[in-house]
Amino acid sequence: MFREVKAAYERIRNVVNTTPVMTSSTLNQLAGCSCFFKCENFQKTGSFKFRGAYNALSQLSHEQKKRGVITHSSGNHAQALALAARILGIKAIVVMPEDAAATKVSATRNYGAEIVTCGSHPEDREKAVEPLRKQYGYTLIHPSNNLSIIAGAGTAAYELMKQVDGLSYVFCPVGGGGLLSGTAIATKGLTPDIQVIGVEPKNADDAYRSLKAGKIIRVTNVKTVADGLRTSLGNHTFDVIKRNVDHIITVSEEEIIDAAQLIWERMKLVVEPSGAVSFAGVLSLRRRLRSRSVGVILSGGNIDTASFFETFKQHLGTVESETKSTP
Amino acid sequence: MFREVKAAYERIRNVVNTTPVMTSSTLNQLAGCSCFFKCENFQKTGSFKFRGAYNALSQLSHEQKKRGVITHSSGNHAQALALAARILGIKAIVVMPEDAAATKVSATRNYGAEIVTCGSHPEDREKAVEPLRKQYGYTLIHPSNNLSIIAGAGTAAYELMKQVDGLSYVFCPVGGGGLLSGTAIATKGLTPDIQVIGVEPKNADDAYRSLKAGKIIRVTNVKTVADGLRTSLGNHTFDVIKRNVDHIITVSEEEIIDAAQLIWERMKLVVEPSGAVSFAGVLSLRRRLRSRSVGVILSGGNIDTASFFETFKQHLGTVESETKSTP
Repeated sequence: MFREVKAAYERIRNVVNTTPVMTSSTLNQLAGCSCFFKCENFQKTGSFKFRGAYNALSQLSHEQKKRGVITHSSGNHAQALALAARILGIKAIVVMPEDAAATKVSATRNYGAEIVTCGSHPEDREKAVEPLRKQYGYTLIHPSNNLSIIAGAGTAAYELMKQVDGLSYVFCPVGGGGLLSGTAIATKGLTPDIQVIGVEPKNADDAYRSLKAGKIIRVTNVKTVADGLRTSLGNHTFDVIKRNVDHIITVSEEEIIDAAQLIWERMKLVVEPSGAVSFAGVLSLRRRLRSRSVGVILSGGNIDTASFFETFKQHLGTVESETKSTP
Repeated sequence: MFREVKAAYERIRNVVNTTPVMTSSTLNQLAGCSCFFKCENFQKTGSFKFRGAYNALSQLSHEQKKRGVITHSSGNHAQALALAARILGIKAIVVMPEDAAATKVSATRNYGAEIVTCGSHPEDREKAVEPLRKQYGYTLIHPSNNLSIIAGAGTAAYELMKQVDGLSYVFCPVGGGGLLSGTAIATKGLTPDIQVIGVEPKNADDAYRSLKAGKIIRVTNVKTVADGLRTSLGNHTFDVIKRNVDHIITVSEEEIIDAAQLIWERMKLVVEPSGAVSFAGVLSLRRRLRSRSVGVILSGGNIDTASFFETFKQHLGTVESETKSTP
């Protein structure tokens, strides 16, 4: 599938942001290795998801484009698909659970998608999608278990390989497995001896368990601060990961939060907990990584900071705007 | 003084970070103009202050270096001076008020400075500095009212001018006025017709009032979320600003907080409220800036996010680390 990643890159490179690779001497000291952070929080719509969404939509037939697309997502894929569809002039329907963050719902709507609300159980999403898809002929663009989504997601690591030489490892978060699948294909396709490590919240360790069992195991009642990683692997992502990923490791909620806070405070980057899981994995394996060059995919930065800023406002009697000019 | 900024740039360019200029189509839409954000939050020690500190220290005589330096600061200058001194092998004493943020005190200590605690009133700082300076012969490096500090601070705008063509305005926060002075000298020195706008919290509007009155007016009982901008102008900075800055405008606490939140959420950049004041100014003048290219100095990103991450931890029963590997 490496060819598909290369083709995806040529297809989307003029539309996606070429995100920067950033470094921090403080975090290198903490991790005991040289970390190269691939900053997909700077991607359009705030996460890597835009790469796959745009790649998938741009390959639809004229007929499919005319009918429109549908997906289900509580967050980053929703916004990515909505923007990609708007750019390509395609109607997009996004099924979102009733407990999705209000900011993500409004962002998705602002990008021009039509929102359909469903219940909060995972199976509610597909139940809401199916009748609409059948009735209107919409094409389903699954958030992760879709080969075009995987190939698009892989362009982040493909770009990283072109930006940084000499990596020994690439660390990547695992949710539905689309990003990890694409990352593994791109990395191994270019430099087979780079180790690809998937990092998963301990509280949502379906990929870890699935690889161990040799079959897809779904986790239920998932409760993790890494809200983008609650979903389980699908048949395509399981297959790619099984064949191309070297290790899956798990990290605790505390490790995830600490990793995110380090990236915020030391690198000045807003990264969401799901996006910082890869760096939590680096820290947990630091003894093995000594002095190596390590790629770290920061997958996204969509997080509601209203509560934090609310605290500021409460601390201060805010003053009405009085803008003046002098001399 | 433009010559001094150019000399400072040559002196420090291999040690300071060349910080990136970033853009956001969403924020451009909101502001109705093209904003070019000069990201000094990515500078060493997290703010532009490192530029001036390193420039000042590297010009000391051998004798001065041997004796050591002293300053007073509750925050960014403290850290910057501490690191610059460490790099140059100079002993640094930093007088910090007893109510300084614990994270800033520990960061300053971690960079190797010796901390002396003083009372929380502004005049307590100089009272603590003077006897030490006299007794040990330390050289005082004032946080803003010092020509080498001003020239070093100006290298941020100097770099910005080299990175972006066609700016019509540069917006810059005003505290003690070191950054605004340097910004004005660099900007006018390279392109005199670019308008330089200083932006100040309404609650700490000493620069606005001083320019109006034609003499330095100090504000007392300053209470603003932009903690880096509580200080007043000095004779050098007042003089430079009077002659080179086109306008000083003021913004409310609410405008500052909203600007910071926009930069966090839309640009994924951690910027401190003091650093976001410049963008608050852009938003407040948006009607005048239509479609122009505007440089915006984001002066720093040092902010304690512990309370925000604490909330995450409280929401979740955190699980102990259990790192495993498979297959």
